[in-house]
Amino acid sequence: MQILKDRINKDGKILEGNVLKVNGFLNHQIDIDLLNDMGKEWKKRFDGVEINKILTIEASGIGIACIAAQYFDVPVVFAKKSKSTNISDNVYTASVESFTHNTVSQIMVDKEFLSKDDKVLIIDDFLANGCALEGLTKIVEEAGGEVAGIGIAIEKDFQPGGKKIRDKGYRLESLAIVKSMDPKTNSCQFK
Amino acid sequence: MQILKDRINKDGKILEGNVLKVNGFLNHQIDIDLLNDMGKEWKKRFDGVEINKILTIEASGIGIACIAAQYFDVPVVFAKKSKSTNISDNVYTASVESFTHNTVSQIMVDKEFLSKDDKVLIIDDFLANGCALEGLTKIVEEAGGEVAGIGIAIEKDFQPGGKKIRDKGYRLESLAIVKSMDPKTNSCQFK
Repeated sequence: MQILKDRINKDGKILEGNVLKVNGFLNHQIDIDLLNDMGKEWKKRFDGVEINKILTIEASGIGIACIAAQYFDVPVVFAKKSKSTNISDNVYTASVESFTHNTVSQIMVDKEFLSKDDKVLIIDDFLANGCALEGLTKIVEEAGGEVAGIGIAIEKDFQPGGKKIRDKGYRLESLAIVKSMDPKTNSCQFK
Repeated sequence: MQILKDRINKDGKILEGNVLKVNGFLNHQIDIDLLNDMGKEWKKRFDGVEINKILTIEASGIGIACIAAQYFDVPVVFAKKSKSTNISDNVYTASVESFTHNTVSQIMVDKEFLSKDDKVLIIDDFLANGCALEGLTKIVEEAGGEVAGIGIAIEKDFQPGGKKIRDKGYRLESLAIVKSMDPKTNSCQFK
């Protein structure tokens, strides 16, 4: 998706350690027009695929998923990373390691909100090592539902997540696939 | 906002300890049509008010804020609750106690995304004790910006947050103000 790639090269910041900061438009400050363009693009790419729910994970995935959901006309469920009085014990869980937070969290989805009837589109901002996606697909399948597709904003091709997910047979649509990035010139090359 | 009040009485769950669960449509599974109705309602209530940014806090506020932002045609910034490699040290911070998580977190907004030129609409799902709002208003004012208004989905009138915020002179628009709630009959009375 050219508009996203251009935006990454215009406003993204590349730090040492394979960190691509897109804080200015995607996951801290959020450009809603860009999110709408992304939602439309996923709708085009998943045209004809039966989807009745979008699943994402807090926090950065939520805005992207909610805007995209308008094009699919489905509700969003987001996996939670911490327990609160608002969540029951009746949950699907998975362990997920975060690349940017350097932590392992137990993610949770209330069993009430995923079932064997669900055809789920999983949406997230980044795909690096694929840990979040492994957790989310596990949860959908534990619920007996079907992963109808996976929509990612930015995939880092030089980290193993994308290959892992595609090798498992999932239909993965990443809107910008970064082949390489150079902190010295602050520029990304895309696939 | 009648449609939200009706939905709370239809799908909300009241637990002991003043907990109102709206997990089914607002902060775990999300009804995007309802969020659009809420966004339109805030736009009507803040008609004529100059707003150039919406500020919220992860995680439950993000979806509500992103959908509402479409009616104001402004970007969203969400305050983060934990440090990651994606966030610089150049941040505004505030301590916020969570009613539902029973924790204190240090919330953060990168200084890049708030300034003295910002007229900010703060959006969040719940107003109970007002701790999150106190943190968010402090951050806007520390940046030299102006809190143009506060939009809340559900305010609990029997907890002190609403009064505290109104007494400080902020313009607060809560879409459903719960006067009392009864776990025995699982029903809410609204103001």
